[in-house]
Amino acid sequence: MIVPRLIERKRDGGTLTASEWRELIHAYSAGDVPDYQMSALLMAIFFRGMTRTETDAFTDAMLSSGARLDLSDMSVARLDKHSTGGVGDKVSLILAPLIAELGVAVPMMSGRGLGHTGGTLDKLEAIPGFRTDLSLAAARKQLDRIGCALIGQTGEIAPADKKLYALRDATGTVEAIPLISASIMSKKLAEGLTGLVLDIKSGSGAFLPELDREIELAKTMIELGADRGCPVVALVTAMDRPLGNTCGNALEVRESIEFLRGNPPDDLAIVTSALGAEMLLLAGAASSHEDAHAQMRDAIMSGRAAERFRAIIAAQGGDPNVVDDISLLPSAPVQIEYRAARDGIVQHVTPRPIGHGVVALGGGRRTMSDAVDLRVGFDILVKPNSVVAAGDVIAIIHAADNAGASIGRGVLEEAVAIGDAAVEVLPLVSHRITSGSVERL
Amino acid sequence: MIVPRLIERKRDGGTLTASEWRELIHAYSAGDVPDYQMSALLMAIFFRGMTRTETDAFTDAMLSSGARLDLSDMSVARLDKHSTGGVGDKVSLILAPLIAELGVAVPMMSGRGLGHTGGTLDKLEAIPGFRTDLSLAAARKQLDRIGCALIGQTGEIAPADKKLYALRDATGTVEAIPLISASIMSKKLAEGLTGLVLDIKSGSGAFLPELDREIELAKTMIELGADRGCPVVALVTAMDRPLGNTCGNALEVRESIEFLRGNPPDDLAIVTSALGAEMLLLAGAASSHEDAHAQMRDAIMSGRAAERFRAIIAAQGGDPNVVDDISLLPSAPVQIEYRAARDGIVQHVTPRPIGHGVVALGGGRRTMSDAVDLRVGFDILVKPNSVVAAGDVIAIIHAADNAGASIGRGVLEEAVAIGDAAVEVLPLVSHRITSGSVERL
Repeated sequence: MIVPRLIERKRDGGTLTASEWRELIHAYSAGDVPDYQMSALLMAIFFRGMTRTETDAFTDAMLSSGARLDLSDMSVARLDKHSTGGVGDKVSLILAPLIAELGVAVPMMSGRGLGHTGGTLDKLEAIPGFRTDLSLAAARKQLDRIGCALIGQTGEIAPADKKLYALRDATGTVEAIPLISASIMSKKLAEGLTGLVLDIKSGSGAFLPELDREIELAKTMIELGADRGCPVVALVTAMDRPLGNTCGNALEVRESIEFLRGNPPDDLAIVTSALGAEMLLLAGAASSHEDAHAQMRDAIMSGRAAERFRAIIAAQGGDPNVVDDISLLPSAPVQIEYRAARDGIVQHVTPRPIGHGVVALGGGRRTMSDAVDLRVGFDILVKPNSVVAAGDVIAIIHAADNAGASIGRGVLEEAVAIGDAAVEVLPLVSHRITSGSVERL
Repeated sequence: MIVPRLIERKRDGGTLTASEWRELIHAYSAGDVPDYQMSALLMAIFFRGMTRTETDAFTDAMLSSGARLDLSDMSVARLDKHSTGGVGDKVSLILAPLIAELGVAVPMMSGRGLGHTGGTLDKLEAIPGFRTDLSLAAARKQLDRIGCALIGQTGEIAPADKKLYALRDATGTVEAIPLISASIMSKKLAEGLTGLVLDIKSGSGAFLPELDREIELAKTMIELGADRGCPVVALVTAMDRPLGNTCGNALEVRESIEFLRGNPPDDLAIVTSALGAEMLLLAGAASSHEDAHAQMRDAIMSGRAAERFRAIIAAQGGDPNVVDDISLLPSAPVQIEYRAARDGIVQHVTPRPIGHGVVALGGGRRTMSDAVDLRVGFDILVKPNSVVAAGDVIAIIHAADNAGASIGRGVLEEAVAIGDAAVEVLPLVSHRITSGSVERL
């Protein structure tokens, strides 16, 4: 294997064989191929793509670089949900206890926030004491006992992907569909799932703002899963405005708890229950979409979903009382109301500046080594097309200090505009993609 | 300067400003930008190219990363020739003493062989004692004294280019026109030239086998030179067969000495004198092509060119007696005749397998750290369209041992074919490219 020749072949539009990919990923993991050769190859992949066979081999090589959760002796279905990442996206926090409560095991492996999107692990750590660094063995025990474990990518799982992801982040090679697909699927397949639901965000705040590329990404992951005994269904959901009313780690935990207690904002309810229904259907735990929605409603209104969240929090070292008393969550010392400057109709609530705004307030990361202030962020009480009067409170800034509050005001001035006409927004759930079909909803 | 953002901008078809390129090259030279980011950027440049302004800034940043020969107080013209690299290309060895003898200073900076093409520095070192590691100060003194210095790229000259070139070689990012142009011109401009002649090889053995890309490369270098007070003229010459009758370091020195003594093979004479004439014209040392050719003929036939080569060899620590007695050059212990297997017409003498064959015999490098056996190579006594009879000696293999001789036979079987019909070959000198014109000759 002469690496520069492999790079040149990919660069010139050729393909590498499955065994070349295997050998390459193995050698890279072992430190025998330097980062500078791998990053040049990654950039060539960005431009040239990968064939299906190459993506398969690449995924399998990353998967086999580490350990996997062996859940094959579990009798219940194992489902996870993966989102391509958005602003205000706290769906995982809600679905994990809700779906587990309905008899489906949820071995959920999540990431940390980077750039304008938040990460589930950071949000969970806003719960005092909550630990996400479970070993695979501990996660397995917890799954048997309470049907859910919320973990990060341990060093055991797909270490080649972990090393590659850090390199991609540093070299402008993140946004390549085969690389994204292989990265996500190698980790998800290591969870021992019997099914996976993808939340493909569309709109300006999405990771890949072009819808056709998002759909291509979904199809690639669906094919990778189908061939490996893990059926995948994807929904395309709106990310032209933040999801729900909160952006920021502790604030999103608060909104998730309110959801589990039966008080969700409408948009978050629609997106979360659509994704949850797909999980229940893939698991064979619901007979129809209607049945799935009824089961979820019942689990919430009966208090069982909230109770399951208490159990998960307790199992992972957190204070379960936060579910009953959200004042136990960390809160920002400075909370400032932000008011509408005029009468009118909200024209847009743009997710990217808000996501970057949370980072600017200290609540996210510019690099993986940054510390995160879990308390800060925004309550945003309006949506595009909300009718407001001058002086109405349209947002609350949660900041560490007055300087942060001032940054927050600037962010909201950029992200929220008030005008006179109604505006078009994306449907909350626009497409359902399965193996072989893209259905417009 | 956030490097991943710069990489993404180039990747997505944008441009970097002159000051961004300056800062980036400076930081890379200083070790503040890691190789893995630079190689991803180089691959993005491979796909996206560079604007003229970017190539300018990139070239200037590499040029200013090191020292330059300050020859501005020299009264005579300073010319160099650069070839894009071919098999059997010993033109530099001949032109350096020949043009210096005609009153033009030749500060010639050359490279080592890599891949299928040889390097002038290796060839020179086949002369017992010859040293090419002159400092810039020593080169300057020698230029004043005998009008020529044959040196390598010292650590002083364009160190950023030296570091980048090694990275490009390891990452499949060599063949990008702006990168090639900037690399060559940053070194050539550091020589303090008043003019430069480019030998752009075309055909299957050329560095970039597509002629239009070769012409684009020439035009880019011509523009870079023109703007920096160094007029450049390029000739496109044939590399669909080796140039001259020898391939291999000591063998090519032998052929160069025979040339300077008045016994050149026809093809080598035509290409060398065409390039030499352009050097003399650019220097103002000849009034016309005819005048230039007459001057060169006279310098050779009078023995003055050979005498100048003796002086250069002596100045650089070599044994000048090789010019009178080629048996002083190192020679291979095994020399085997290779004969035509049938009557017929030579169909092709393919340069790449022969170039790679010299490497396989030990006479070239796979990586820059390989040692080179200067003795080995091929005499190839036929050209495409030569008429041969079965049993005629058509080549001599020069090898270190019998195993090498056997490799050499395999190489010649691949590279030389005998058939029945005449074949088309490229004209030896096909195009003359100047600032603003591409003239077909």
